[in-house]
Amino acid sequence: MLKGKQSILFDDAPYIISSGSVVGKKEGEGPLGQLFDLVEEENLFGKDTWEEAESEMQKEACLMALGKAKLDPHEVRYLFGGDLLRQGIATSMGLEELHIPLFGLYGACSTSGEALALSSMSVAAGYGEYILAVTSSHFGSAEKEFRFPLAYANQRPPSSQWTVTGSGAFLVGRKKANVRIAGVTVGKIVDYGLKDSQNMGACMAPAACDTIIQNLSDFGYKSSDYDRIITGDLGYVGQSILFDLMRKQGKDIKENHMDCGMLIFDQQTQGTNAGGSGCGCAAVTLSSFILPKISTGEWKRVLFVPTGALMSTVSFNEGQSVPGIAHGIVLEHC
Amino acid sequence: MLKGKQSILFDDAPYIISSGSVVGKKEGEGPLGQLFDLVEEENLFGKDTWEEAESEMQKEACLMALGKAKLDPHEVRYLFGGDLLRQGIATSMGLEELHIPLFGLYGACSTSGEALALSSMSVAAGYGEYILAVTSSHFGSAEKEFRFPLAYANQRPPSSQWTVTGSGAFLVGRKKANVRIAGVTVGKIVDYGLKDSQNMGACMAPAACDTIIQNLSDFGYKSSDYDRIITGDLGYVGQSILFDLMRKQGKDIKENHMDCGMLIFDQQTQGTNAGGSGCGCAAVTLSSFILPKISTGEWKRVLFVPTGALMSTVSFNEGQSVPGIAHGIVLEHC
Repeated sequence: MLKGKQSILFDDAPYIISSGSVVGKKEGEGPLGQLFDLVEEENLFGKDTWEEAESEMQKEACLMALGKAKLDPHEVRYLFGGDLLRQGIATSMGLEELHIPLFGLYGACSTSGEALALSSMSVAAGYGEYILAVTSSHFGSAEKEFRFPLAYANQRPPSSQWTVTGSGAFLVGRKKANVRIAGVTVGKIVDYGLKDSQNMGACMAPAACDTIIQNLSDFGYKSSDYDRIITGDLGYVGQSILFDLMRKQGKDIKENHMDCGMLIFDQQTQGTNAGGSGCGCAAVTLSSFILPKISTGEWKRVLFVPTGALMSTVSFNEGQSVPGIAHGIVLEHC
Repeated sequence: MLKGKQSILFDDAPYIISSGSVVGKKEGEGPLGQLFDLVEEENLFGKDTWEEAESEMQKEACLMALGKAKLDPHEVRYLFGGDLLRQGIATSMGLEELHIPLFGLYGACSTSGEALALSSMSVAAGYGEYILAVTSSHFGSAEKEFRFPLAYANQRPPSSQWTVTGSGAFLVGRKKANVRIAGVTVGKIVDYGLKDSQNMGACMAPAACDTIIQNLSDFGYKSSDYDRIITGDLGYVGQSILFDLMRKQGKDIKENHMDCGMLIFDQQTQGTNAGGSGCGCAAVTLSSFILPKISTGEWKRVLFVPTGALMSTVSFNEGQSVPGIAHGIVLEHC
């Protein structure tokens, strides 16, 4: 069951039974706009603050995933959730009403991978028939948390990324479905010493490379054994660094690599610079775009690799570097 | 294996093989001072910032636990860790050098319970021979994160608590030891609508009550089946509320209840008001004081219930309440 140094191959692989994606207006206008379950025209989602709006999105995404599976919240054993905000407040406030025992997570933008890893590990171990994994991010709350007041209208360098307003929830369980989580590769912190918080892609690419290489080694796969290797939010800058780093390890993944941060916005028309980012980016792209392709069998096996940049305003102000982390989830058609 | 609504009873219970506790000067001067593995006289731990000091503590606590078990970091499969700071930065910075695949957690001061729950669940499921659980808090970094600059010397109300400077690490594994984790009860978010961030004990007591009641119900235990029920950091105010809430449910735990926040400081002489708090409080008390008593058999069965108050400065400023969460860990002598 243990594979190599960092991975688990499930003997009895759990399934992604259903999922829900809730996004904001800009995401709804992007290339994946028609695929999301719910596009809210108003980014406050009827609430008074960005944080409450993000909480509301998480709750709606969970209820959407549960609704598709015709389940009530009380039938879910545990919930793994997280967001980007200090003290994970969007998760605490949003999920309270569901009354599901909660494991709060923090893995920056890699959190959807962390949540799926722990959910599938728990289901495979028999710790629950149904377990929910949810993550979210919100452009408004993230700018407030990490950068400048929106009204200040600061300039954004070309390497900067646009935080996705969105939440994706995944119901993982034993009930047969068309997508299974065959295994996971848990990532290590990888620090190349970069300190530019406006260039997250560069900070995260080494971690993505490390996890992909480890996954291939642990499972004994070639990169071509995956129909797609899909990172979370490296964006255009991070992707080119990832290709360089992989090439140095003798691997070429240009043919089958995609990045959720590059898929979710139209860089040319939406002014999103290097691409989308945030906990919600990989989650809503998985729910709306990736899972349906695996479900129909168009893709047989996908390595989903959400990537996170581990920093805070405090660590940044104190001159610390921005290490990255990435978790790999092996998704298979069945 | 699943017990009741929220609990797991392990068929093959994992052990706490070793642990490490690292604390600051004030904690070293308290009632448990002689029991800690390492008391640093200088709260910066040789670093330049409180955050780096906290990171250093985490690393030292992990190395201490590993050293006692004569293990190298590369022999540890996974690490579950967290702290109180925004974006869990003490964990990201401290554990990087260990190069162990990481699951970052956030459960406020309940995080040591969350980390022990997930570590034991993972070991019991065969996901690793050795897994580390670590949490930390630091008075300096926590005041900076949540309250006022230390130099401002703000007054502290009697209900306020003193964040423990400390980190506790636990090596969980299959190798036989004298303390086993027999089971866990995963907590729900419980919100009584309290909004006083200077009265954390009152905010957390309802969650502690909920988890203890659920644990007794799930396992079919009376409170007297535990030699001790030990909460994380309710303090004097929270304890009296917990007793009231338990009594309303027809349970009296006065005889066998202890609270790490009340054990770690001498309220009379150390000026710590309602008691100690923080992710590190429950962790270092477990490592230094509780585990040895279970190990020798003085206590046969203990319910360890770290308690967390889910809030951030942003949620507080926006007028949100402070919900609580608590996880229960069933520890047994063997």
